[in-house]
Amino acid sequence: MRAALYLGNERFEVQERDSLAPGPGEVRLEVAYVGICGTDLHIKHGAMDRRVTIPAVIGHEMSGTVAALGPGVSAYAVGDKVTVMPLDWDGTCPACLAGNQHVCQNLVFVGIDAPGAMQQSWTVPERLLVRLPQELGLREAALSEPLAVAVHDVRRGRVRSGERVLVVGGGPIGLLIAQVAAAEGAEVVVSEPSDFRRAAADRLGLRTIDPTSADVQAEVEAWTGGAGADVAFEVSGSQPGLRAATHALRVRGRLVVVAIFNQPTPVDLFRCFWRELELIGARVYERRDFERAVELLAGGDIQADRLISAVEPIERTAEAFATLESGGDVVKVLIDFSGGNERNRG
Amino acid sequence: MRAALYLGNERFEVQERDSLAPGPGEVRLEVAYVGICGTDLHIKHGAMDRRVTIPAVIGHEMSGTVAALGPGVSAYAVGDKVTVMPLDWDGTCPACLAGNQHVCQNLVFVGIDAPGAMQQSWTVPERLLVRLPQELGLREAALSEPLAVAVHDVRRGRVRSGERVLVVGGGPIGLLIAQVAAAEGAEVVVSEPSDFRRAAADRLGLRTIDPTSADVQAEVEAWTGGAGADVAFEVSGSQPGLRAATHALRVRGRLVVVAIFNQPTPVDLFRCFWRELELIGARVYERRDFERAVELLAGGDIQADRLISAVEPIERTAEAFATLESGGDVVKVLIDFSGGNERNRG
Repeated sequence: MRAALYLGNERFEVQERDSLAPGPGEVRLEVAYVGICGTDLHIKHGAMDRRVTIPAVIGHEMSGTVAALGPGVSAYAVGDKVTVMPLDWDGTCPACLAGNQHVCQNLVFVGIDAPGAMQQSWTVPERLLVRLPQELGLREAALSEPLAVAVHDVRRGRVRSGERVLVVGGGPIGLLIAQVAAAEGAEVVVSEPSDFRRAAADRLGLRTIDPTSADVQAEVEAWTGGAGADVAFEVSGSQPGLRAATHALRVRGRLVVVAIFNQPTPVDLFRCFWRELELIGARVYERRDFERAVELLAGGDIQADRLISAVEPIERTAEAFATLESGGDVVKVLIDFSGGNERNRG
Repeated sequence: MRAALYLGNERFEVQERDSLAPGPGEVRLEVAYVGICGTDLHIKHGAMDRRVTIPAVIGHEMSGTVAALGPGVSAYAVGDKVTVMPLDWDGTCPACLAGNQHVCQNLVFVGIDAPGAMQQSWTVPERLLVRLPQELGLREAALSEPLAVAVHDVRRGRVRSGERVLVVGGGPIGLLIAQVAAAEGAEVVVSEPSDFRRAAADRLGLRTIDPTSADVQAEVEAWTGGAGADVAFEVSGSQPGLRAATHALRVRGRLVVVAIFNQPTPVDLFRCFWRELELIGARVYERRDFERAVELLAGGDIQADRLISAVEPIERTAEAFATLESGGDVVKVLIDFSGGNERNRG
């Protein structure tokens, strides 16, 4: 089987490797599609070289089918469509014991801290599998993981039907959050400077604001009768975005910080005080979020296919990364690992 | 009657003035004690000259007795002990209509935006009164307002019995928050660099940490078996304090930002993400918080008397301000407006 290996120094290479036979409690998967995440770009640029073991198989957004069962695995059969929830917790730390396994204090994130999905044949513990309905296409199913992020973010924001929600940043996660919030019955506006991404949002039926030509706070005030938004999601990772999200909220509004800010970042704490805002951290997802994501995809609530800008074959892994980080007209890029295996074609 | 007037340029003067007869729905109070708040110090230094009308009677922490009733007032009788909840809302803005009158978008804060308590005779709308039990001393009762702040902060932090709480900053509000949290059944530690204030905390039976000689995060980790605190209150208004509070929290811990940060302030959003923290803004109090504060004072749960470092007569208003801002061995300073009126002596 072939694997895409990260070699360090921004380099990827496709190599022939042996498949790993599944041990007790393990399952070998035939990988269909793998999405490239912003985190994978960070890995490419060396920002996580302390965590990955080079040469590394990375990738944590995927879909595939069960190819072989290790001893003791009875809940799955060969041919079942599955995805992987790439979180492996220890179950014994204070966070796990308090019921927050997904943010285990010693969490192993599969695809960073352990080998990931960018290989045709992937052997993983059965406990990480999430079952996919057989009717769900494997291309769309490769978006289960980022969609689980969005479901978790919306849950953290406690979005209720009828609420008004501002999403700052219309990249893949922002557009998924917007769709999940809309599926929960919220009214949603997306603020995004890129014409291409605003057009993508338009096609999803979402209202948009261009923050380069409009005053986001004033627009939201007009929209909400002077009150402000109930919930804002900061997905841009930018200081102006963070400020806009903070200032667009109503009294007691909730700000979910989705983008990762690696450095301490100025926050308008006076506004947080004045309006009694809540700023809420959100990280990955719980199993129920992952299962809800699959349910939303299967139910057609999320137009995942519209977010997929390109699907590249394994050989073009390096080009797929380059396409995504070009900053051009792209939302989500997948790599096709099915390699001609018809069963695994979405 | 005499009033202490703020004249601008850091000056105060005590002048003879006429009492104001209470109009319909109003009550004239004989003021007993008025506490000086950090906000009053800001006013003295000109930071709120846009909001106060000079010459201004300021002051919003007080106790007194009812001296005269305007037409239509029937719930109070002359001689009743009362305090004033200094919030006057419009009842019609989006925040009020959503039930958050205390953070009304057009809130009038009495003692800043309207004449305050630093006068022997004060006429106020009946709706602002909060009844004091007759057995409660008027000196302690003058702390109802800052105690209501603390009750509100603890409510915003959703502190539950058995939780571990870190209070960063052992000034008047910090020590009140610590006592309220302890009254709710929490275990509390106060981090405070001043020896004098730590000693004050000790006398209240609170555990303390000196952040100038100990690593607050390590101390809290040792205390909580590696988990971190459930709730932290940032009351120091300092960046190191904010950082310590952020880093001392457990996964999904809650950080109530009590101190007012006037400028956008660096927050470790990575830590908020990594541990799924909540940062919670808190401003003033709701009526139920004020009533709970009076109840706690009357029940002896709060040792308010131990926080009162000095009581100065009206003539020494300027000196009382100077004492408080000396930064020396002082927690709370009151001004005695009873002027020999025995009924109003605590």
